[in-house]
Amino acid sequence: MSLKLVVGNKNYSSWSMRPWVALKGAGIPFEEVFIPLYTDAADKQRILDVTPSGKVPALVDGDITVWDSLAIIEYAAERFPDAKLWPQEAAHRAHARAVSAEMHSGFMPLRNECGMNLHRPVKAKALSDDAKANIARIDAIWSDCRKRYGAAGPYLFGAFSAADAMFAPVVHRFRIYAIEVSPVARAYMDTMQANPAFRQWTEEGLAETLLIPRFEEE
Amino acid sequence: MSLKLVVGNKNYSSWSMRPWVALKGAGIPFEEVFIPLYTDAADKQRILDVTPSGKVPALVDGDITVWDSLAIIEYAAERFPDAKLWPQEAAHRAHARAVSAEMHSGFMPLRNECGMNLHRPVKAKALSDDAKANIARIDAIWSDCRKRYGAAGPYLFGAFSAADAMFAPVVHRFRIYAIEVSPVARAYMDTMQANPAFRQWTEEGLAETLLIPRFEEE
Repeated sequence: MSLKLVVGNKNYSSWSMRPWVALKGAGIPFEEVFIPLYTDAADKQRILDVTPSGKVPALVDGDITVWDSLAIIEYAAERFPDAKLWPQEAAHRAHARAVSAEMHSGFMPLRNECGMNLHRPVKAKALSDDAKANIARIDAIWSDCRKRYGAAGPYLFGAFSAADAMFAPVVHRFRIYAIEVSPVARAYMDTMQANPAFRQWTEEGLAETLLIPRFEEE
Repeated sequence: MSLKLVVGNKNYSSWSMRPWVALKGAGIPFEEVFIPLYTDAADKQRILDVTPSGKVPALVDGDITVWDSLAIIEYAAERFPDAKLWPQEAAHRAHARAVSAEMHSGFMPLRNECGMNLHRPVKAKALSDDAKANIARIDAIWSDCRKRYGAAGPYLFGAFSAADAMFAPVVHRFRIYAIEVSPVARAYMDTMQANPAFRQWTEEGLAETLLIPRFEEE
């Protein structure tokens, strides 16, 4: 029985993007179940039929349902060790989990002010100091990773890992809102934008025609 | 070389409480490094001297520094497998990670409206509908766990696990703000409040004399 990954609109759902890019990027096969979000009052029930959290993403593996992007990634990392979702060296893995968890629980100002909307025309907007501090911190995380692990490959921890997937929506946010970053961060964004899994998600999101007015206002 | 766990004020720092209770509750030895928070402008630098995230908690294990509550728990779970920080059965572990990650990234309304302050006099306050929905969801998570795993012990997954530690500050929030919960949730709160690690943290927090005016206003 194959894995089923339940995701929302590719144009908007940054949380869905993370495990989708992680699994796809690591070559783990799965079947995609799409639930259009923000369309009508029955949205919530459609998600609750799959996962008790009432939120996408969720992963269904036979009798097991796992929700939340990071828990899905940990589950997949255990279930498919050969996919090497986390770095193989313990110290690097600890670092990858630290930056992934920091992303998972934080950066609210950036996330609130720069919503992911793939087809928004690229343009800058005024940001709060807190959002600017988030951007500086993410740039520092990426730059530190590239400095430490750059010799091993073009991703944050050399080879592609779950940490890249956790930051994938941020790559879009930085692009969409024309945010200025360091040359090292810019080069990393180029790497991600050339990644086949990242590109496929992005192309499929751009092909969506469902627009949600309240996400299209800025 | 022993582990060092860097934590903030026990009275207020809910994020510090989580890995502290996880490690202590699972019998993993560590040395505690206390950084008083919210005292002066040098706070941030004192934390940055230990961890690049600029936030507590952080775990230092020789050359390795891990930050963020959940990443610390994953690191400790790998480093001390005999401590069984996560449930041993794969399906139960997946469930424990899902509810832990849901806590880690969510429940903002409850967290914002009901800050952890151990010595606040117990009394109810008016809550938003979003905070009430958070409370109902947490009650549902706990009740579902107790129904599924109750036969194996009094904690969420039978035996004590990292999931209990992730929800430990919520037990305090529910107590401090006199929040009404189901009998099953109430019984689980009693279990946690009798847990030696939970009690030790609480007693040490109550013994702190450092009061931060802006957390004492409600």
